[in-house]
Amino acid sequence: MSDIRIILVEPSHPGNIGAAARAMMNMGLEQLLLVRPKQFPHPEATARASGAESVLASATVVGSLAEATHGCGFIAATTARERDQNFRVLDVRAAAARIVEESRRATAAVLFGAERTGLPNEELQSSHVLIRIPASAVYPSLNLGMAVQLVAYELFRAAGGDVTTQLPQTSSSVPLATPEEMERLYTHLAQVMHEVDFRDRTQSGTHLMDRIRRLLQRAELDQNEVNILRGLLTAVQQRRHPAGSQQRNA
Amino acid sequence: MSDIRIILVEPSHPGNIGAAARAMMNMGLEQLLLVRPKQFPHPEATARASGAESVLASATVVGSLAEATHGCGFIAATTARERDQNFRVLDVRAAAARIVEESRRATAAVLFGAERTGLPNEELQSSHVLIRIPASAVYPSLNLGMAVQLVAYELFRAAGGDVTTQLPQTSSSVPLATPEEMERLYTHLAQVMHEVDFRDRTQSGTHLMDRIRRLLQRAELDQNEVNILRGLLTAVQQRRHPAGSQQRNA
Repeated sequence: MSDIRIILVEPSHPGNIGAAARAMMNMGLEQLLLVRPKQFPHPEATARASGAESVLASATVVGSLAEATHGCGFIAATTARERDQNFRVLDVRAAAARIVEESRRATAAVLFGAERTGLPNEELQSSHVLIRIPASAVYPSLNLGMAVQLVAYELFRAAGGDVTTQLPQTSSSVPLATPEEMERLYTHLAQVMHEVDFRDRTQSGTHLMDRIRRLLQRAELDQNEVNILRGLLTAVQQRRHPAGSQQRNA
Repeated sequence: MSDIRIILVEPSHPGNIGAAARAMMNMGLEQLLLVRPKQFPHPEATARASGAESVLASATVVGSLAEATHGCGFIAATTARERDQNFRVLDVRAAAARIVEESRRATAAVLFGAERTGLPNEELQSSHVLIRIPASAVYPSLNLGMAVQLVAYELFRAAGGDVTTQLPQTSSSVPLATPEEMERLYTHLAQVMHEVDFRDRTQSGTHLMDRIRRLLQRAELDQNEVNILRGLLTAVQQRRHPAGSQQRNA
């Protein structure tokens, strides 16, 4: 991820520059280049960077796109309009995978145009692909900072920044209840259901106990939780047979 | 996509509300609900909505999360912190697939907390899953509007047939229990726990009722299942007060 540049061409709102900086830092990107920004530095940029001032501080301001892409290999440009059919257009997710891969060979760059006008045709000339961000046909025009966020997010994912999150999150350090513990819970529950004379009152033909088992299986109980539920069942039983009364089948 | 609510809980910056509205409209979402916004309406919200004023204009301001989620089925909450290990946590992409799927059964909701503090624990209580947005460990805190953008983007993709992701089998045609039905279940359960004098016997400091709520939220109960559990609770109560005995507080 260190070899990917984010290049904003003629951004007009300094707030968007700050928002882009934060979006980048959130997703592990550092290299921000600004081609002829209308206003920069600017308090609004700093305010919106909010925690990502380091990215702003190291941002490079240049006078031309050629300077910004100097030394780069693969270059991708975001565009709302699919005006030029001679470009290869990649969906942002596929583009991100490609950019990450290319950045292992040489510095890769992603270009973003000005808020209102996007990238002029001549600025697209150095690009290898256009990036398309899927959006509603009713109002497809994304805010510049948002576009940077979505690209950065897909780059972060493509770079494997989220591998750990693909694992199912059972982050609790308490182990899941074993099948035997679950069986003992169900036996205990069946006992209580019998004691309180709880039978199927639903229309459905499925067995009540099966339904309850399934919903508790879905909950993926850990050992503490099984203990809590068994404690509750025991409390129900004890209250039905108050202390002192020893007989179970009264 | 028409049956998905975006709910911002106590947003403090009106600019973020506007940004969220635009992000939503860009991705085909329309229902914005604001719980106790600090300032709204506000010129900054309108400015940032920029083209999505219709979403802002139809945004509903309510006084509590319960009002915002009224009538909803599946509820997902965004959170930066993985503080609560008893929730099921889904990556935003998997969560989006799930939310779109669930929205075909009943209105689904996505909750976003305040900028600085996120969602307080009590506001998480009605959620079925937490949404995790992958981000850099160095600076993982996303701007609120950006978080809405990423979730909306993944929802748009998930709804657009782009669903390559694993769809959990929720084959049931029975709607998920509404938040109100779940609240009534918890109230009923608390009543029974009180009646059988069941108190915290675990070492952990977490509140017993919170633990039970969370494990039941994870189970994502449908309406039949809530009825089954409430029937069981009623049976427990009736057995404690045998037929003929009318007094409840013996």
